[in-house]
Amino acid sequence: MVNFEQWDGFEGRLWKEEINVRDFIQNNYTPYDGDEKFLAPATEATDKLWGALQKLQKEERAKGGVLDMDTDIVASLTSHGPGYIDESLKDLEKVVGLQTDKPLKRAFMPYGGIQMAEKSLTEYGYTPNPELHKIFTVYHKTHNQAVFDAYTPEMRAARKNKIITGLPDTYGRGRIVGDYRRVALYGIDHLIECKEADKAVCGSGSMKGEVIRLREELQEQINALKGMKEMAALYGFDISKPATNAREAVQWTYFGYLAAIKTQNGAAMSIGRVCTFLDIYIERDMAKGILSETEAQELIDHMVLKFRMVKFARCESYNQLFSGDPVWATIDLAGIGVDGRSMVTKTDYRVLHTLENMGPSPEPNITVLYSSALPEAFKKYAAYISITTSSIQYENDDVMKPIWGDDYAICCCVSATQTGKEMQFFGARANLAKCLLYAINGGVDEKNKVQVGPKYQPITSEYLDYDEVMDKYDAMLDWLADIYVNTLNLIQYMHDKYYYEAAQMALIDTDVRRTFATGIAGFSHVIDSLSAIKYAKVQVIRDENGLAVDYKIDGDFPRYGNDDDRADEIGVWLLRTFLAKIKKHHTYRRSEPTTSILTITSNVVYGKATGAMPDGRPAGAPLSPGANPAYGAETNGLLASLNSVAKIPYEWALDGISNTQTINPDALGHDVEEQKKNLVQAMDGYFNQGAHHLNVNVFGIDKLKDAMEHPEKEEYANFTIRVSGYAVKFIDLTREQQLDVISRTCHASL
Amino acid sequence: MVNFEQWDGFEGRLWKEEINVRDFIQNNYTPYDGDEKFLAPATEATDKLWGALQKLQKEERAKGGVLDMDTDIVASLTSHGPGYIDESLKDLEKVVGLQTDKPLKRAFMPYGGIQMAEKSLTEYGYTPNPELHKIFTVYHKTHNQAVFDAYTPEMRAARKNKIITGLPDTYGRGRIVGDYRRVALYGIDHLIECKEADKAVCGSGSMKGEVIRLREELQEQINALKGMKEMAALYGFDISKPATNAREAVQWTYFGYLAAIKTQNGAAMSIGRVCTFLDIYIERDMAKGILSETEAQELIDHMVLKFRMVKFARCESYNQLFSGDPVWATIDLAGIGVDGRSMVTKTDYRVLHTLENMGPSPEPNITVLYSSALPEAFKKYAAYISITTSSIQYENDDVMKPIWGDDYAICCCVSATQTGKEMQFFGARANLAKCLLYAINGGVDEKNKVQVGPKYQPITSEYLDYDEVMDKYDAMLDWLADIYVNTLNLIQYMHDKYYYEAAQMALIDTDVRRTFATGIAGFSHVIDSLSAIKYAKVQVIRDENGLAVDYKIDGDFPRYGNDDDRADEIGVWLLRTFLAKIKKHHTYRRSEPTTSILTITSNVVYGKATGAMPDGRPAGAPLSPGANPAYGAETNGLLASLNSVAKIPYEWALDGISNTQTINPDALGHDVEEQKKNLVQAMDGYFNQGAHHLNVNVFGIDKLKDAMEHPEKEEYANFTIRVSGYAVKFIDLTREQQLDVISRTCHASL
Repeated sequence: MVNFEQWDGFEGRLWKEEINVRDFIQNNYTPYDGDEKFLAPATEATDKLWGALQKLQKEERAKGGVLDMDTDIVASLTSHGPGYIDESLKDLEKVVGLQTDKPLKRAFMPYGGIQMAEKSLTEYGYTPNPELHKIFTVYHKTHNQAVFDAYTPEMRAARKNKIITGLPDTYGRGRIVGDYRRVALYGIDHLIECKEADKAVCGSGSMKGEVIRLREELQEQINALKGMKEMAALYGFDISKPATNAREAVQWTYFGYLAAIKTQNGAAMSIGRVCTFLDIYIERDMAKGILSETEAQELIDHMVLKFRMVKFARCESYNQLFSGDPVWATIDLAGIGVDGRSMVTKTDYRVLHTLENMGPSPEPNITVLYSSALPEAFKKYAAYISITTSSIQYENDDVMKPIWGDDYAICCCVSATQTGKEMQFFGARANLAKCLLYAINGGVDEKNKVQVGPKYQPITSEYLDYDEVMDKYDAMLDWLADIYVNTLNLIQYMHDKYYYEAAQMALIDTDVRRTFATGIAGFSHVIDSLSAIKYAKVQVIRDENGLAVDYKIDGDFPRYGNDDDRADEIGVWLLRTFLAKIKKHHTYRRSEPTTSILTITSNVVYGKATGAMPDGRPAGAPLSPGANPAYGAETNGLLASLNSVAKIPYEWALDGISNTQTINPDALGHDVEEQKKNLVQAMDGYFNQGAHHLNVNVFGIDKLKDAMEHPEKEEYANFTIRVSGYAVKFIDLTREQQLDVISRTCHASL
Repeated sequence: MVNFEQWDGFEGRLWKEEINVRDFIQNNYTPYDGDEKFLAPATEATDKLWGALQKLQKEERAKGGVLDMDTDIVASLTSHGPGYIDESLKDLEKVVGLQTDKPLKRAFMPYGGIQMAEKSLTEYGYTPNPELHKIFTVYHKTHNQAVFDAYTPEMRAARKNKIITGLPDTYGRGRIVGDYRRVALYGIDHLIECKEADKAVCGSGSMKGEVIRLREELQEQINALKGMKEMAALYGFDISKPATNAREAVQWTYFGYLAAIKTQNGAAMSIGRVCTFLDIYIERDMAKGILSETEAQELIDHMVLKFRMVKFARCESYNQLFSGDPVWATIDLAGIGVDGRSMVTKTDYRVLHTLENMGPSPEPNITVLYSSALPEAFKKYAAYISITTSSIQYENDDVMKPIWGDDYAICCCVSATQTGKEMQFFGARANLAKCLLYAINGGVDEKNKVQVGPKYQPITSEYLDYDEVMDKYDAMLDWLADIYVNTLNLIQYMHDKYYYEAAQMALIDTDVRRTFATGIAGFSHVIDSLSAIKYAKVQVIRDENGLAVDYKIDGDFPRYGNDDDRADEIGVWLLRTFLAKIKKHHTYRRSEPTTSILTITSNVVYGKATGAMPDGRPAGAPLSPGANPAYGAETNGLLASLNSVAKIPYEWALDGISNTQTINPDALGHDVEEQKKNLVQAMDGYFNQGAHHLNVNVFGIDKLKDAMEHPEKEEYANFTIRVSGYAVKFIDLTREQQLDVISRTCHASL
């Protein structure tokens, strides 16, 4: 058992015997069930720093979305000297550390793919460094090149025709959450010792490929830990030993995260579950009388300020998938411990309060791990923040805890992973809507008119027969699951080989559990299409070559989103069937296959590539996002819609089921108190049914339309909305995506 | 079936249906059983070029062994413009192509290990390029770094204490022979097509790790083939189509080999079995009347000139292992086809004749695939070349053909691989002599006095008991085989990952057979030691800590090398036991474990690290090389010695059993005719018993001593001797190694 003087006053034993932050938290945290009245306003320093950052953000928007970019430095832990929000204000920063030497300056990160890294530069008017070009083409292969070296022609075709889509082969897979708290609790030196010990027993001398790979990875992890110390030293901090107080705990934890975002540009770079942890240090300092509430809030505000600044260089095609420059710096609040105690602390309040002290913001992606058993005061305060900022999301702790325990974190928009014990192979999505069209057309792509899937018999009848469609769809889903899983196997293999996340994995147990995430796009459209075929009469419109290109529906049919079992059961069937087909296959590194129903903003791009559907959705129209019912399908109000989504079993979609809803404030009540009460009631009801996730927007369509037409208005500068699994500043969306958001159902009644 | 106009006049079908050079050869070659009288002398051009090269070689020696080195260019297929032996003579060169832009200038090849590459420079007074240093430390990891990242402490200790030794972790593993003839026969474009077709069916879409790896490798191979075309174009040749005549066939084949030595610096970079193949083109041109014997010989002379120029940058520690700057540019002659026809052609004569036209030379490493059934005239001519040059070696085609067919090539000193169908994972050696000392000392190293092996009980008695020694030796061999195989697994994995031989593997079948070569050092000393323990009385001398450090032998005992079954049977037991222990283990990439008894010149280094042995060999004395009996052990003449070695079953040492013998010319006969006859007779007898290999030196010890003392004498400039598995210029050996060679048995009688 190790013991550090920095641990003075902390209880418990197991976390001293082994690396175990959860045990430390459970032994030391102070649940808080009071209300928000204790919270302190922003300090002058916070106002100044946030003011300076807002100025930079304005400049950034004025320059087309990018303020500055590196061209000549390859990002690494120690590639840049120290950087500050504003040199003249740097003494005010209670938490320091930037990705590069300048605020909002985007680093050059070629390991995922030199082409994309260079495209990101040229698209914003910067010139790639020719020497670095040579290095990363002639001497060192990058992830993207390796993937395309190994792709089969079938995979290329499936990818090009977007039946599998959004794949992390042109960007980092992300979604790995290091346990950044370990840096604060244990200090780097002890973490190195533990990894050295792991390496010493790794493989027992039997050198099979997987052992050799792991041994090399462990050395990379140890090197990364050493690099983190050097990185912190550049800012004048020695993080070799544990943090001694709250400020150091926040700073050390942030350095852990900074190491991740300096070395990886994954789509999602989440922070994890740090509030309860940091609260322990704050409570200790307050008990000692060395920290006031104002100072505590300032620490949290400054930490959150840093999370608001995370940026990566992205190219146009990436921005189409993930609009509004998101990084999924997801930070998790609340939840209930396995012992039944609420894990809400004052610091959970403090993080929510940043949205008041510094106004709404899409990042960090604040996520409340919800349970109806959370303290009422906290639920109401969260609801209040939703109503006033539309910046936060909710996920059902009651369904996640049995699977992931009480120390999981959300690693992207809605996907849970156990902190420090698990990593995920992110896998984007298969377009099941397009797959239904392939089933009808015998594997021919309805948009590009080329054979992509197998040459199965197409449907040739004028009217679609439900049994025939189901039979053919089943076979086509088999093909899709096969090529999808194998494409992902290849991508994950190459990512490990060419772009291994050493800094993040250094903060995760060596004996890591791996999940293999897949995803479903087009969920509601498949349900409604099959329902139409079953309950109405669907006539096929064919082009001159006999290809089904449109559908005429005669008669009514039940639609998903109205609490009608006839439709909703098709959704349950679809998820179960797809997951079973995924699970049939070998998955990379003995990972556990999971799936999700979430699409981020990529529903627009996916929809553009998808022909007309038998549910009446026209060709090219956006798919409905995530597990949301189709636009216009919900006719029975918010609660009926929530009931439909709640029927989808989370156990079969452990990677998450995303649902985004917009409620007119008036529908929630006449005053804020009534609105808070009603929103909490709606969420209690929704989540008590076992639903997984809810994005809550509270505004009317008129506000959206006005913001679209008048983005210059001051009130819209930080106007944030929740889209599928994350938040964006509405004015940062493309017009096309703004129109998509506007066309989504805004519930005028519960 | 493809057909090229360049194939006009060639017979057969299968080789047109698939890549199959063997089938082409068997259908088209012309056996020759006449004598050497047809051979033509060197042309004026050859004399001039060889003169120019000799001048360069002299300069090279004067400069300490290295003429020039690259510091700023990373070697690749197209990194250098064309280079010639002498710019003013370049029109005389019938075969062109250098590794760099200047003759004997050594390329900078960092992929195997940046440290070694830079050490090779600094040890010869060159300054490494700091930018390249950064690239190959910060951006791109090299093979050597990766291996050391993954090594266990046990492996490091075993390596440092030299119980496993000479490992290819600080240099390229080599020993892969591309089928360079394919470039001439098929042209690059067709080879690319075939590799593309292989890639199309590789893995059937099921992406397990090994399939993904192979798919990526295939793309690397295709890229290398494209690179070869560019490389040839720099010299003004278009090798996209098959060669049209003999000169092109020689040139295309050499370009294939040049691609290998431009991109890999393996210990052994062999050429393969090209004579019979090239002879077909020469015969066709001669039949057409467009090529004379003089021109044919000139082509072969110029090709061999190029093989004499192959050089790599090496560092001091490497040179100690492999003394005299060898590259094992092994080229194979003769052999018997599976149909019983001799494969000797006039071109086999022409290659031997280069040793007359241009004098003796250690490279290429000319190897006669011997059978007593070879034409008498050829056997005698080869014997004559041995007697006059001591530059060639013999391997038993009769024992190799049943295993490898009739198109194998020697990939290093003595190891066979099927050309174009197979590759070898080279694995250096385990020191079985030292292992015996570990058995006696309970795993403590007798030189460094540290625990290296497992802490088994040591032997504590004053006199060694045979049964106790055998019991403890068996257990220690188990440990050694385990750590040895696993160390090699790790090395081969990393070599594939960081230093894949794309250009060579591009000229080998995709569905390649892999052997996993291990090796034995200290063979004769283990035999004699165990014999001494069994048949005499061996007293242990211990140091103050009780460590056995020397042995006193009381009484006579039979020694290996005298045709005495009591000793020789111990050798058979040792090989069988070691191989069985090797075979127990998992070997990388489903390779087939093999072993060898060969040590090159590293017997000196190995011996230096090995303590005194119970056979009377003093601490630090060189081990006897390969399967050779211990120095001074052979007391019954050459034939008895050969009989002992011939008892070692080749089937259990498929990687080769090396035997080097020196015969005083007088012992062979009074005139050249008698000497030829007797040497052929001795070899017939030796090989008919199933022996594998023989290095033949014909000279007296006095000549060696004179050459050591007077290296400046003109007659010794090219004085070449055979050492274990290769040839060296005697004056290029270190004095220590010269003394070792001198101390070896020189048979004064048959």
